[in-house]
Amino acid sequence: MQGPGDTPPTAPSYAPTGRTVPTRSAGRAAYDRSVVHAILDEGYVCHLGFVRDGAPVVLPTLYARVGERLYVHGSTGSRPLRMAAGTARGLPVCLTVTHVDALVLARSAFHHSMNYRSVVVLGTAYDVTGAEEKRAALDALVDHAVPGRSRDSRPADKKELAATAVLRLDLAEVSAKLRTGGVNDEPEDLALPHWAGLVPLRKGYEAPVPDPGLAPGTPLPAYLAAG
Amino acid sequence: MQGPGDTPPTAPSYAPTGRTVPTRSAGRAAYDRSVVHAILDEGYVCHLGFVRDGAPVVLPTLYARVGERLYVHGSTGSRPLRMAAGTARGLPVCLTVTHVDALVLARSAFHHSMNYRSVVVLGTAYDVTGAEEKRAALDALVDHAVPGRSRDSRPADKKELAATAVLRLDLAEVSAKLRTGGVNDEPEDLALPHWAGLVPLRKGYEAPVPDPGLAPGTPLPAYLAAG
Repeated sequence: MQGPGDTPPTAPSYAPTGRTVPTRSAGRAAYDRSVVHAILDEGYVCHLGFVRDGAPVVLPTLYARVGERLYVHGSTGSRPLRMAAGTARGLPVCLTVTHVDALVLARSAFHHSMNYRSVVVLGTAYDVTGAEEKRAALDALVDHAVPGRSRDSRPADKKELAATAVLRLDLAEVSAKLRTGGVNDEPEDLALPHWAGLVPLRKGYEAPVPDPGLAPGTPLPAYLAAG
Repeated sequence: MQGPGDTPPTAPSYAPTGRTVPTRSAGRAAYDRSVVHAILDEGYVCHLGFVRDGAPVVLPTLYARVGERLYVHGSTGSRPLRMAAGTARGLPVCLTVTHVDALVLARSAFHHSMNYRSVVVLGTAYDVTGAEEKRAALDALVDHAVPGRSRDSRPADKKELAATAVLRLDLAEVSAKLRTGGVNDEPEDLALPHWAGLVPLRKGYEAPVPDPGLAPGTPLPAYLAAG
Protein backbone atom coordinates (compact mmCIF):
# COMPACT_ATOMS: atom_id res chain seq x y z
CA MET A 1 0.00 0.00 0.00
CA GLN A 2 1.35 3.39 -0.95
CA GLY A 3 -0.07 6.86 -0.73
CA PRO A 4 -1.37 8.65 -3.80
CA GLY A 5 1.30 10.38 -5.80
CA ASP A 6 3.87 7.68 -5.03
CA THR A 7 3.43 6.17 -8.48
CA PRO A 8 6.39 6.99 -10.74
CA PRO A 9 5.00 8.65 -13.88
CA THR A 10 6.47 5.86 -15.99
CA ALA A 11 4.96 3.01 -13.97
CA PRO A 12 2.46 0.92 -15.94
CA SER A 13 -0.02 0.99 -13.03
CA TYR A 14 -1.39 3.34 -10.39
CA ALA A 15 -0.32 2.35 -6.88
CA PRO A 16 -3.33 1.01 -4.94
CA THR A 17 -4.16 2.82 -1.70
CA GLY A 18 -6.33 1.98 1.26
CA ARG A 19 -9.14 3.88 -0.44
CA THR A 20 -8.85 2.27 -3.88
CA VAL A 21 -8.75 -1.41 -2.88
CA PRO A 22 -12.37 -2.61 -2.82
CA THR A 23 -13.71 -4.43 0.22
CA ARG A 24 -15.09 -7.12 -2.07
CA SER A 25 -14.84 -8.37 -5.68
CA ALA A 26 -11.18 -7.43 -5.56
CA GLY A 27 -10.68 -9.57 -8.66
CA ARG A 28 -12.63 -6.99 -10.63
CA ALA A 29 -10.30 -4.15 -9.70
CA ALA A 30 -7.58 -2.93 -12.06
CA TYR A 31 -4.91 -0.28 -11.75
CA ASP A 32 -3.23 -0.41 -15.19
CA ARG A 33 -2.85 3.00 -16.71
CA SER A 34 -3.82 1.68 -20.15
CA VAL A 35 -7.09 0.20 -18.83
CA VAL A 36 -7.92 3.35 -16.88
CA HIS A 37 -7.11 5.67 -19.80
CA ALA A 38 -9.21 3.63 -22.24
CA ILE A 39 -12.26 3.73 -19.95
CA LEU A 40 -11.85 7.46 -19.35
CA ASP A 41 -11.37 8.25 -23.03
CA GLU A 42 -14.52 6.41 -24.07
CA GLY A 43 -16.94 8.28 -21.78
CA TYR A 44 -19.02 11.36 -22.50
CA VAL A 45 -19.92 12.45 -18.98
CA CYS A 46 -18.42 11.79 -15.59
CA HIS A 47 -20.19 11.97 -12.25
CA LEU A 48 -18.40 14.44 -10.03
CA GLY A 49 -18.92 14.07 -6.30
CA PHE A 50 -18.08 16.65 -3.66
CA VAL A 51 -19.20 17.52 -0.15
CA ARG A 52 -21.40 20.55 0.48
CA ASP A 53 -22.37 21.44 4.05
CA GLY A 54 -21.36 17.95 5.09
CA ALA A 55 -23.61 16.19 2.57
CA PRO A 56 -22.62 14.46 -0.66
CA VAL A 57 -23.51 15.98 -4.04
CA VAL A 58 -23.09 14.14 -7.35
CA LEU A 59 -23.43 16.05 -10.62
CA PRO A 60 -22.97 14.85 -14.21
CA THR A 61 -20.52 16.90 -16.23
CA LEU A 62 -18.30 16.80 -19.30
CA TYR A 63 -14.64 15.99 -18.77
CA ALA A 64 -11.44 15.42 -20.71
CA ARG A 65 -8.14 13.68 -20.09
CA VAL A 66 -4.77 15.20 -20.98
CA GLY A 67 -2.04 12.75 -20.04
CA GLU A 68 -2.30 12.18 -16.31
CA ARG A 69 -4.72 15.04 -15.70
CA LEU A 70 -8.48 15.31 -15.96
CA TYR A 71 -10.32 18.55 -16.61
CA VAL A 72 -13.92 19.56 -16.01
CA HIS A 73 -15.39 22.94 -16.77
CA GLY A 74 -18.45 25.03 -16.19
CA SER A 75 -19.77 28.48 -15.61
CA THR A 76 -17.77 30.48 -13.09
CA GLY A 77 -21.10 30.73 -11.25
CA SER A 78 -21.69 27.00 -10.85
CA ARG A 79 -21.37 25.48 -7.41
CA PRO A 80 -18.42 23.07 -7.51
CA LEU A 81 -16.40 25.49 -9.61
CA ARG A 82 -16.99 28.35 -7.20
CA MET A 83 -16.16 26.06 -4.28
CA ALA A 84 -12.87 24.96 -5.84
CA ALA A 85 -11.89 28.43 -6.98
CA GLY A 86 -12.69 29.88 -3.56
CA THR A 87 -9.73 28.23 -1.89
CA ALA A 88 -6.13 27.50 -2.80
CA ARG A 89 -6.55 24.17 -1.02
CA GLY A 90 -8.88 23.04 -3.79
CA LEU A 91 -11.99 20.90 -3.53
CA PRO A 92 -11.88 17.22 -2.50
CA VAL A 93 -13.73 15.30 -5.20
CA CYS A 94 -14.47 11.84 -6.50
CA LEU A 95 -14.79 11.63 -10.27
CA THR A 96 -16.40 8.47 -11.62
CA VAL A 97 -16.89 7.29 -15.21
CA THR A 98 -18.98 4.22 -15.97
CA HIS A 99 -19.80 2.26 -19.11
CA VAL A 100 -22.58 -0.31 -19.02
CA ASP A 101 -21.73 -2.88 -21.68
CA ALA A 102 -24.36 -5.59 -21.21
CA LEU A 103 -27.13 -6.78 -18.94
CA VAL A 104 -26.34 -10.23 -17.53
CA LEU A 105 -29.50 -12.32 -17.18
CA ALA A 106 -28.90 -15.37 -15.02
CA ARG A 107 -31.31 -18.20 -14.26
CA SER A 108 -31.32 -17.07 -10.63
CA ALA A 109 -32.37 -13.56 -9.60
CA PHE A 110 -29.31 -13.43 -7.33
CA HIS A 111 -26.81 -13.78 -10.17
CA HIS A 112 -28.32 -11.09 -12.36
CA SER A 113 -25.61 -8.55 -13.03
CA MET A 114 -24.13 -6.16 -15.55
CA ASN A 115 -21.00 -6.13 -17.57
CA TYR A 116 -19.52 -2.72 -16.92
CA ARG A 117 -16.26 -0.81 -16.80
CA SER A 118 -15.79 2.04 -14.37
CA VAL A 119 -13.02 4.30 -13.16
CA VAL A 120 -13.03 6.07 -9.82
CA VAL A 121 -10.60 8.98 -9.32
CA LEU A 122 -10.11 10.35 -5.81
CA GLY A 123 -8.32 13.61 -5.26
CA THR A 124 -8.45 17.36 -5.06
CA ALA A 125 -9.71 19.57 -7.88
CA TYR A 126 -7.95 22.88 -8.41
CA ASP A 127 -9.03 25.94 -10.33
CA VAL A 128 -6.91 26.35 -13.49
CA THR A 129 -5.65 29.92 -13.55
CA GLY A 130 -2.91 29.76 -16.21
CA ALA A 131 -4.17 31.01 -19.57
CA GLU A 132 -2.26 28.44 -21.61
CA GLU A 133 -3.36 25.44 -19.54
CA LYS A 134 -6.93 26.72 -19.57
CA ARG A 135 -7.01 27.05 -23.36
CA ALA A 136 -5.51 23.58 -23.82
CA ALA A 137 -8.04 22.14 -21.38
CA LEU A 138 -10.96 23.74 -23.22
CA ASP A 139 -9.69 22.32 -26.52
CA ALA A 140 -9.42 18.91 -24.87
CA LEU A 141 -12.98 19.20 -23.56
CA VAL A 142 -14.29 19.84 -27.08
CA ASP A 143 -12.11 17.10 -28.56
CA HIS A 144 -12.95 14.54 -25.90
CA ALA A 145 -16.35 13.62 -27.33
CA VAL A 146 -15.43 14.29 -30.97
CA PRO A 147 -11.67 14.11 -31.62
CA GLY A 148 -10.58 16.81 -34.04
CA ARG A 149 -13.53 19.07 -33.37
CA SER A 150 -11.68 21.89 -31.57
CA ARG A 151 -9.77 22.78 -34.75
CA ASP A 152 -13.10 22.99 -36.61
CA SER A 153 -14.86 25.53 -34.38
CA ARG A 154 -14.38 29.14 -33.32
CA PRO A 155 -12.13 29.24 -30.23
CA ALA A 156 -13.42 30.92 -27.08
CA ASP A 157 -12.98 34.70 -27.05
CA LYS A 158 -11.86 36.75 -24.06
CA LYS A 159 -15.37 37.14 -22.63
CA GLU A 160 -16.17 33.45 -23.02
CA LEU A 161 -12.87 32.46 -21.43
CA ALA A 162 -13.61 34.73 -18.47
CA ALA A 163 -17.05 33.19 -18.04
CA THR A 164 -15.68 29.65 -17.98
CA ALA A 165 -13.97 28.01 -15.04
CA VAL A 166 -11.82 24.91 -15.49
CA LEU A 167 -10.87 22.47 -12.74
CA ARG A 168 -7.87 20.16 -12.84
CA LEU A 169 -7.71 16.75 -11.13
CA ASP A 170 -4.51 14.71 -11.25
CA LEU A 171 -4.69 10.97 -11.92
CA ALA A 172 -2.94 9.69 -8.80
CA GLU A 173 -5.38 7.76 -6.59
CA VAL A 174 -7.20 5.83 -9.28
CA SER A 175 -8.84 2.45 -9.73
CA ALA A 176 -10.85 0.72 -12.42
CA LYS A 177 -13.46 -1.94 -11.85
CA LEU A 178 -14.67 -4.28 -14.56
CA ARG A 179 -17.09 -7.11 -14.97
CA THR A 180 -16.77 -9.02 -18.24
CA GLY A 181 -17.74 -12.45 -19.47
CA GLY A 182 -20.90 -14.48 -19.28
CA VAL A 183 -23.51 -15.75 -16.85
CA ASN A 184 -22.32 -17.23 -13.52
CA ASP A 185 -25.20 -19.43 -12.39
CA GLU A 186 -25.00 -22.06 -9.65
CA PRO A 187 -24.45 -25.57 -11.09
CA GLU A 188 -27.78 -26.76 -9.66
CA ASP A 189 -29.62 -23.98 -11.52
CA LEU A 190 -28.33 -24.77 -15.00
CA ALA A 191 -31.27 -27.01 -15.88
CA LEU A 192 -33.89 -24.42 -14.94
CA PRO A 193 -36.12 -23.43 -17.86
CA HIS A 194 -35.29 -19.71 -17.71
CA TRP A 195 -33.55 -18.03 -20.63
CA ALA A 196 -30.08 -16.84 -19.65
CA GLY A 197 -27.51 -14.81 -21.49
CA LEU A 198 -26.13 -11.36 -22.21
CA VAL A 199 -28.03 -8.37 -23.54
CA PRO A 200 -25.38 -6.06 -25.06
CA LEU A 201 -26.22 -2.37 -24.97
CA ARG A 202 -25.96 -0.32 -28.13
CA LYS A 203 -22.96 2.02 -28.44
CA GLY A 204 -21.90 4.83 -30.72
CA TYR A 205 -24.17 7.35 -32.36
CA GLU A 206 -26.91 7.70 -34.93
CA ALA A 207 -26.65 9.77 -38.11
CA PRO A 208 -25.77 13.38 -37.22
CA VAL A 209 -28.60 15.91 -37.65
CA PRO A 210 -27.43 19.19 -39.24
CA ASP A 211 -28.51 22.49 -37.68
CA PRO A 212 -31.41 23.94 -39.74
CA GLY A 213 -29.38 27.12 -40.24
CA LEU A 214 -26.42 25.31 -41.78
CA ALA A 215 -25.48 26.55 -45.25
CA PRO A 216 -26.80 24.03 -47.80
CA GLY A 217 -24.08 21.76 -49.08
CA THR A 218 -21.95 21.96 -45.91
CA PRO A 219 -20.36 18.51 -45.85
CA LEU A 220 -20.38 16.24 -42.82
CA PRO A 221 -16.85 16.44 -41.37
CA ALA A 222 -14.69 13.34 -41.67
CA TYR A 223 -14.38 13.13 -37.88
CA LEU A 224 -18.14 12.47 -37.69
CA ALA A 225 -18.37 10.03 -40.57
CA ALA A 226 -17.09 7.04 -38.60
CA GLY A 227 -20.08 6.81 -36.26
CA MET B 1 -39.09 27.09 -0.65
CA GLN B 2 -40.12 24.13 1.44
CA GLY B 3 -38.16 21.46 3.20
CA PRO B 4 -37.99 17.95 1.85
CA GLY B 5 -40.95 15.82 2.76
CA ASP B 6 -43.32 18.77 2.62
CA THR B 7 -44.63 17.63 -0.76
CA PRO B 8 -48.08 16.05 -0.47
CA PRO B 9 -47.85 12.58 -2.02
CA THR B 10 -50.50 13.55 -4.56
CA ALA B 11 -48.79 16.76 -5.71
CA PRO B 12 -47.71 16.68 -9.34
CA SER B 13 -44.27 18.07 -8.47
CA TYR B 14 -41.57 17.76 -5.82
CA ALA B 15 -41.22 20.92 -3.73
CA PRO B 16 -37.94 22.68 -4.60
CA THR B 17 -35.57 23.24 -1.68
CA GLY B 18 -32.52 25.43 -1.22
CA ARG B 19 -30.41 22.46 -2.28
CA THR B 20 -32.35 21.52 -5.41
CA VAL B 21 -32.62 24.93 -7.06
CA PRO B 22 -29.53 25.30 -9.28
CA THR B 23 -27.38 28.40 -9.05
CA ARG B 24 -27.54 28.73 -12.84
CA SER B 25 -29.45 27.41 -15.86
CA ALA B 26 -32.53 27.36 -13.65
CA GLY B 27 -34.59 27.07 -16.82
CA ARG B 28 -33.25 23.55 -17.24
CA ALA B 29 -34.51 22.39 -13.85
CA ALA B 30 -37.72 20.41 -13.48
CA TYR B 31 -39.56 19.04 -10.47
CA ASP B 32 -42.51 17.21 -12.09
CA ARG B 33 -42.96 13.73 -10.72
CA SER B 34 -43.71 12.38 -14.20
CA VAL B 35 -40.50 13.81 -15.65
CA VAL B 36 -38.43 12.55 -12.71
CA HIS B 37 -39.99 9.07 -12.80
CA ALA B 38 -39.45 8.70 -16.55
CA ILE B 39 -35.76 9.60 -16.27
CA LEU B 40 -35.27 7.24 -13.33
CA ASP B 41 -37.11 4.37 -15.00
CA GLU B 42 -35.02 4.60 -18.18
CA GLY B 43 -31.61 4.26 -16.51
CA TYR B 44 -29.55 1.14 -15.86
CA VAL B 45 -27.10 2.43 -13.26
CA CYS B 46 -27.13 5.33 -10.88
CA HIS B 47 -24.12 7.04 -9.35
CA LEU B 48 -24.39 6.89 -5.58
CA GLY B 49 -22.44 9.47 -3.64
CA PHE B 50 -21.67 9.35 0.07
CA VAL B 51 -19.06 10.76 2.44
CA ARG B 52 -16.34 8.52 3.87
CA ASP B 53 -13.85 9.97 6.35
CA GLY B 54 -14.88 13.44 5.20
CA ALA B 55 -14.20 12.79 1.52
CA PRO B 56 -16.72 12.18 -1.28
CA VAL B 57 -17.09 8.74 -2.86
CA VAL B 58 -19.14 8.08 -6.00
CA LEU B 59 -19.89 4.49 -7.04
CA PRO B 60 -21.98 3.17 -9.93
CA THR B 61 -24.70 0.74 -8.91
CA LEU B 62 -27.97 -0.79 -10.03
CA TYR B 63 -31.16 0.75 -8.68
CA ALA B 64 -34.92 0.46 -8.97
CA ARG B 65 -37.91 2.70 -8.29
CA VAL B 66 -41.03 1.52 -6.49
CA GLY B 67 -43.48 4.41 -6.33
CA GLU B 68 -41.79 7.18 -4.38
CA ARG B 69 -38.91 5.02 -3.16
CA LEU B 70 -35.61 4.06 -4.72
CA TYR B 71 -33.69 0.92 -3.84
CA VAL B 72 -30.08 -0.05 -4.32
CA HIS B 73 -28.51 -3.31 -3.26
CA GLY B 74 -25.20 -4.99 -2.84
CA SER B 75 -23.21 -7.44 -0.82
CA THR B 76 -23.62 -7.01 2.92
CA GLY B 77 -19.84 -6.56 2.87
CA SER B 78 -19.76 -3.59 0.50
CA ARG B 79 -18.85 -0.20 1.90
CA PRO B 80 -21.93 2.02 1.54
CA LEU B 81 -24.21 -0.84 2.57
CA ARG B 82 -22.23 -1.53 5.72
CA MET B 83 -22.11 2.19 6.49
CA ALA B 84 -25.89 2.55 6.14
CA ALA B 85 -26.67 -0.63 8.04
CA GLY B 86 -24.31 0.34 10.83
CA THR B 87 -26.53 3.11 12.11
CA ALA B 88 -30.25 3.67 12.56
CA ARG B 89 -29.66 7.24 11.41
CA GLY B 90 -28.90 5.95 7.93
CA LEU B 91 -26.37 7.22 5.42
CA PRO B 92 -26.64 10.66 3.77
CA VAL B 93 -26.43 10.08 0.04
CA CYS B 94 -26.86 11.74 -3.32
CA LEU B 95 -28.17 9.43 -6.02
CA THR B 96 -27.81 10.69 -9.59
CA VAL B 97 -29.07 9.21 -12.86
CA THR B 98 -28.01 10.70 -16.19
CA HIS B 99 -28.91 10.03 -19.82
CA VAL B 100 -26.80 11.58 -22.55
CA ASP B 101 -29.10 11.95 -25.56
CA ALA B 102 -26.98 13.85 -28.07
CA LEU B 103 -23.76 15.75 -28.53
CA VAL B 104 -24.43 19.37 -29.49
CA LEU B 105 -21.78 20.64 -31.91
CA ALA B 106 -21.92 24.42 -32.22
CA ARG B 107 -19.90 26.65 -34.54
CA SER B 108 -18.20 28.12 -31.47
CA ALA B 109 -16.28 25.97 -29.00
CA PHE B 110 -18.04 27.81 -26.17
CA HIS B 111 -21.52 26.66 -27.20
CA HIS B 112 -20.65 23.00 -27.52
CA SER B 113 -22.93 21.10 -25.20
CA MET B 114 -24.91 17.93 -24.68
CA ASN B 115 -28.55 17.12 -24.67
CA TYR B 116 -29.06 15.22 -21.44
CA ARG B 117 -31.61 14.39 -18.81
CA SER B 118 -30.54 13.87 -15.22
CA VAL B 119 -32.16 13.38 -11.83
CA VAL B 120 -30.47 14.18 -8.53
CA VAL B 121 -31.96 12.71 -5.36
CA LEU B 122 -30.72 14.00 -2.01
CA GLY B 123 -31.56 12.20 1.19
CA THR B 124 -30.74 9.48 3.64
CA ALA B 125 -30.44 5.82 2.71
CA TYR B 126 -31.71 3.26 5.22
CA ASP B 127 -31.03 -0.44 5.48
CA VAL B 128 -34.18 -2.41 4.58
CA THR B 129 -34.76 -4.93 7.35
CA GLY B 130 -38.34 -6.06 6.66
CA ALA B 131 -38.40 -9.37 4.76
CA GLU B 132 -41.38 -8.42 2.62
CA GLU B 133 -40.03 -5.03 1.57
CA LYS B 134 -36.63 -6.58 0.89
CA ARG B 135 -38.09 -9.25 -1.39
CA ALA B 136 -40.20 -6.70 -3.27
CA ALA B 137 -37.14 -4.47 -3.68
CA LEU B 138 -35.04 -7.33 -5.07
CA ASP B 139 -37.79 -8.16 -7.57
CA ALA B 140 -37.89 -4.50 -8.57
CA LEU B 141 -34.12 -4.45 -9.02
CA VAL B 142 -34.32 -7.39 -11.45
CA ASP B 143 -37.34 -5.93 -13.24
CA HIS B 144 -35.88 -2.43 -13.50
CA ALA B 145 -33.59 -3.21 -16.44
CA VAL B 146 -35.83 -5.90 -17.96
CA PRO B 147 -39.50 -5.56 -16.95
CA GLY B 148 -41.06 -8.97 -16.32
CA ARG B 149 -37.77 -10.72 -15.68
CA SER B 150 -38.19 -11.41 -11.95
CA ARG B 151 -41.09 -13.79 -12.63
CA ASP B 152 -38.85 -15.67 -15.09
CA SER B 153 -35.93 -16.45 -12.76
CA ARG B 154 -35.33 -18.39 -9.57
CA PRO B 155 -36.02 -16.14 -6.58
CA ALA B 156 -33.30 -15.60 -4.00
CA ASP B 157 -33.06 -18.35 -1.38
CA LYS B 158 -32.45 -17.80 2.34
CA LYS B 159 -28.67 -17.74 2.05
CA GLU B 160 -28.72 -15.36 -0.92
CA LEU B 161 -31.17 -13.05 0.87
CA ALA B 162 -28.89 -12.97 3.91
CA ALA B 163 -25.88 -12.11 1.76
CA THR B 164 -27.68 -9.18 0.11
CA ALA B 165 -28.25 -5.80 1.69
CA VAL B 166 -30.86 -3.40 0.31
CA LEU B 167 -30.96 0.35 0.92
CA ARG B 168 -34.05 2.51 0.64
CA LEU B 169 -34.04 6.19 -0.36
CA ASP B 170 -37.28 8.16 -0.42
CA LEU B 171 -37.99 10.51 -3.29
CA ALA B 172 -38.49 13.74 -1.37
CA GLU B 173 -35.70 16.21 -2.18
CA VAL B 174 -35.51 15.66 -5.92
CA SER B 175 -34.76 17.63 -9.06
CA ALA B 176 -34.36 16.90 -12.73
CA LYS B 177 -32.21 18.85 -15.14
CA LEU B 178 -32.64 18.69 -18.90
CA ARG B 179 -31.10 20.16 -21.99
CA THR B 180 -33.07 19.56 -25.17
CA GLY B 181 -33.27 21.21 -28.57
CA GLY B 182 -30.70 22.34 -31.07
CA VAL B 183 -27.56 24.42 -31.38
CA ASN B 184 -27.47 27.85 -29.70
CA ASP B 185 -24.79 29.75 -31.57
CA GLU B 186 -24.26 33.50 -31.39
CA PRO B 187 -25.90 35.33 -34.34
CA GLU B 188 -22.52 36.59 -35.57
CA ASP B 189 -21.20 33.01 -35.75
CA LEU B 190 -23.94 31.59 -37.98
CA ALA B 191 -22.04 32.26 -41.20
CA LEU B 192 -18.88 30.46 -40.01
CA PRO B 193 -17.94 27.49 -42.21
CA HIS B 194 -18.03 24.92 -39.39
CA TRP B 195 -20.54 22.06 -39.48
CA ALA B 196 -23.04 22.38 -36.65
CA GLY B 197 -25.77 20.10 -35.44
CA LEU B 198 -26.75 17.26 -33.14
CA VAL B 199 -25.12 13.86 -32.89
CA PRO B 200 -27.75 11.57 -31.29
CA LEU B 201 -26.36 8.72 -29.23
CA ARG B 202 -27.59 5.19 -29.86
CA LYS B 203 -30.02 3.72 -27.30
CA GLY B 204 -31.47 0.31 -26.52
CA TYR B 205 -29.72 -2.99 -26.93
CA GLU B 206 -28.30 -5.34 -29.52
CA ALA B 207 -29.50 -8.88 -30.15
CA PRO B 208 -29.33 -10.89 -26.90
CA VAL B 209 -26.57 -13.53 -26.75
CA PRO B 210 -27.75 -16.84 -25.20
CA ASP B 211 -25.61 -18.50 -22.53
CA PRO B 212 -23.62 -21.36 -24.16
CA GLY B 213 -25.14 -23.73 -21.59
CA LEU B 214 -28.71 -22.89 -22.50
CA ALA B 215 -30.79 -25.90 -23.57
CA PRO B 216 -31.08 -25.85 -27.38
CA GLY B 217 -34.41 -24.50 -28.54
CA THR B 218 -34.97 -22.29 -25.46
CA PRO B 219 -36.94 -19.40 -26.95
CA LEU B 220 -36.00 -15.74 -26.46
CA PRO B 221 -38.53 -14.40 -23.92
CA ALA B 222 -41.10 -11.91 -25.18
CA TYR B 223 -39.84 -9.29 -22.73
CA LEU B 224 -36.52 -9.29 -24.61
CA ALA B 225 -37.90 -9.33 -28.11
CA ALA B 226 -38.74 -5.62 -28.19
CA GLY B 227 -35.11 -4.44 -28.14
